[in-house]
Amino acid sequence: MIVLFTDFGIEGPYTGQVQARLQQLAPGVPVINLFSDLEPYDVEAAAYLLPAYAAGFPPGTVFVCVVDPGVGGSRPGVAVCADGCWYVGPNEGLFAILARRARHVQCRELPAAMGVSSSFHGRDVFAPVAAQLAGGLSVEAVDVPVACLDKPEWPDELLRVVYIDRYGNAMTGVRASEVDASQLLSVNGHQLKSAQTFSDVGMGEAFWYANSNGLVELAVNRGRADKVLGISVGTLLSL
Amino acid sequence: MIVLFTDFGIEGPYTGQVQARLQQLAPGVPVINLFSDLEPYDVEAAAYLLPAYAAGFPPGTVFVCVVDPGVGGSRPGVAVCADGCWYVGPNEGLFAILARRARHVQCRELPAAMGVSSSFHGRDVFAPVAAQLAGGLSVEAVDVPVACLDKPEWPDELLRVVYIDRYGNAMTGVRASEVDASQLLSVNGHQLKSAQTFSDVGMGEAFWYANSNGLVELAVNRGRADKVLGISVGTLLSL
Amino acid sequence: MIVLFTDFGIEGPYTGQVQARLQQLAPGVPVINLFSDLEPYDVEAAAYLLPAYAAGFPPGTVFVCVVDPGVGGSRPGVAVCADGCWYVGPNEGLFAILARRARHVQCRELPAAMGVSSSFHGRDVFAPVAAQLAGGLSVEAVDVPVACLDKPEWPDELLRVVYIDRYGNAMTGVRASEVDASQLLSVNGHQLKSAQTFSDVGMGEAFWYANSNGLVELAVNRGRADKVLGISVGTLLSL
Repeated sequence: MIVLFTDFGIEGPYTGQVQARLQQLAPGVPVINLFSDLEPYDVEAAAYLLPAYAAGFPPGTVFVCVVDPGVGGSRPGVAVCADGCWYVGPNEGLFAILARRARHVQCRELPAAMGVSSSFHGRDVFAPVAAQLAGGLSVEAVDVPVACLDKPEWPDELLRVVYIDRYGNAMTGVRASEVDASQLLSVNGHQLKSAQTFSDVGMGEAFWYANSNGLVELAVNRGRADKVLGISVGTLLSL
Repeated sequence: MIVLFTDFGIEGPYTGQVQARLQQLAPGVPVINLFSDLEPYDVEAAAYLLPAYAAGFPPGTVFVCVVDPGVGGSRPGVAVCADGCWYVGPNEGLFAILARRARHVQCRELPAAMGVSSSFHGRDVFAPVAAQLAGGLSVEAVDVPVACLDKPEWPDELLRVVYIDRYGNAMTGVRASEVDASQLLSVNGHQLKSAQTFSDVGMGEAFWYANSNGLVELAVNRGRADKVLGISVGTLLSL
Repeated sequence: MIVLFTDFGIEGPYTGQVQARLQQLAPGVPVINLFSDLEPYDVEAAAYLLPAYAAGFPPGTVFVCVVDPGVGGSRPGVAVCADGCWYVGPNEGLFAILARRARHVQCRELPAAMGVSSSFHGRDVFAPVAAQLAGGLSVEAVDVPVACLDKPEWPDELLRVVYIDRYGNAMTGVRASEVDASQLLSVNGHQLKSAQTFSDVGMGEAFWYANSNGLVELAVNRGRADKVLGISVGTLLSL
């Protein structure tokens, strides 16, 4: 299975072009759009989503991961093998938290792209590499130290909003397993208690809970947390 | 074929996670996103869309249907067999109109979900059941009376807007077959005549017509009916 | 491979209904959504995107192309064979630029649709034709002169914005190969220089460049060109 984890958008041409390329190079391999609306340029936010949302995919899954503020720049592409899955994309920090949490990690640097568009490496560089890996083939690449993936200044739990979903729920970069359920969470002057799930609080009430992928998420029962709390991707919180 | 009929959104992770689960449990079965942007929490609106948009799918199709205001609550999940197709989801009224209009209906109640996320039953409960049904397997479930699906207070034709499409056209919960083409339709102080199709009225003119799935739909030739008429999902109409 | 190039939107029912129809009539043929958010009614804009974004697909690809201001009107549907690929849709100019640039073009007019919805020919007429062509079958159609596809009043390079992507970048109807890199481009009182790619200009700076499909595109490094330049689909430019 190949999984797309990008900020490409799903309606415009980019996701479709990547899918078409994968279809040609790895026919018959299913392609899943996991995220196509990650916050543009916000590599840090995506880095905390990746290990949470990659969990549960079977070994051998290949993730194409692109959030790329330095479009066309010279940052190298990498293929990361972490606990049996492959992750391919530009190395600007997107794999930092994933690599920190994985038990077994290997990192390979892809050769500089030649003769392809300078602005769409997702289609022209990373999709072909993903297709090869999905087919069990090796890719031309050089082993590099895993440390090159890390961003040492990034914390283990990121106290800010990293994604807002269609319902207005706000995912954070904090693992719920690292927070006691009795803790209050502060955001924009609001103090939120935790709850097990939506139906455990009153209509219109804001709360935090462990979402279905283990992240602390801010929500409002039958309401939009983003509107009620005045938050967006990047809003800071404290515990 | 497995068909998704949800309010999950298509860009964020939820639809992709359901697709990935289906891919693992029912490899090779095609998955179609029919609706992924149903109005959140508005089970009633979705209930009138379902029979209109499920029509025409071949026998054996399995629909995963989730619009779920009571996320994590204790409402039971059901698997409904109606005229040869299966429909799986939480029983909060979403299958009421479908069951009322079908010739042959059976309803089975799914056992309470154990050991899964309390907030994403679409992925953790309903997708696995759908995968089993798509593979021709039976599911552990108890036959229950079909009457448990109905919402007796809901009318046969719902005189309100149930969905607004990308063009600004407004679908209603009324079957066009139940309305005479000579009838005027009133909405927000506007009186609309019927027309066969867009090109039959003047540019910018509002009208109603029988849409391609048999529902009364409000539209404007080369314009947005939602803007021109000031309507949104929930706006009432009268005949 | 069947490729969808439409203004249907991807979340609502239309793209899913077309996919379901294709799945039934051409099981196993992969379907790619290339564009599902073309500007409604703007056939001209789409006509300049089509040859740019159809390039690179393998021979035998079948494109379903629908941007249809005259929904339900009597304009004929066509199946166009251009340089080894098929293009199916209503003939309102969408194939004009494609046909002008192709080396080998044939055009066949589809018979008037009978007994189908008058508003959803994408699902009821063009998808079935595409499925037949993808299966290597011929379709009932009459050869007509290729000239019927053209819009002689349309220029070879269209000096306006034809699409704005998720990042706010603005594609134009101008091929970058027809413009010297030293040329300034004027839009809304701004004078833009060209650059190779995003990382070649300062943060927040606007520029134009040859995008990954060869069109002149207006962009801002780590910003939204649509907001910075105050532009939208239809905005005119000059060279």
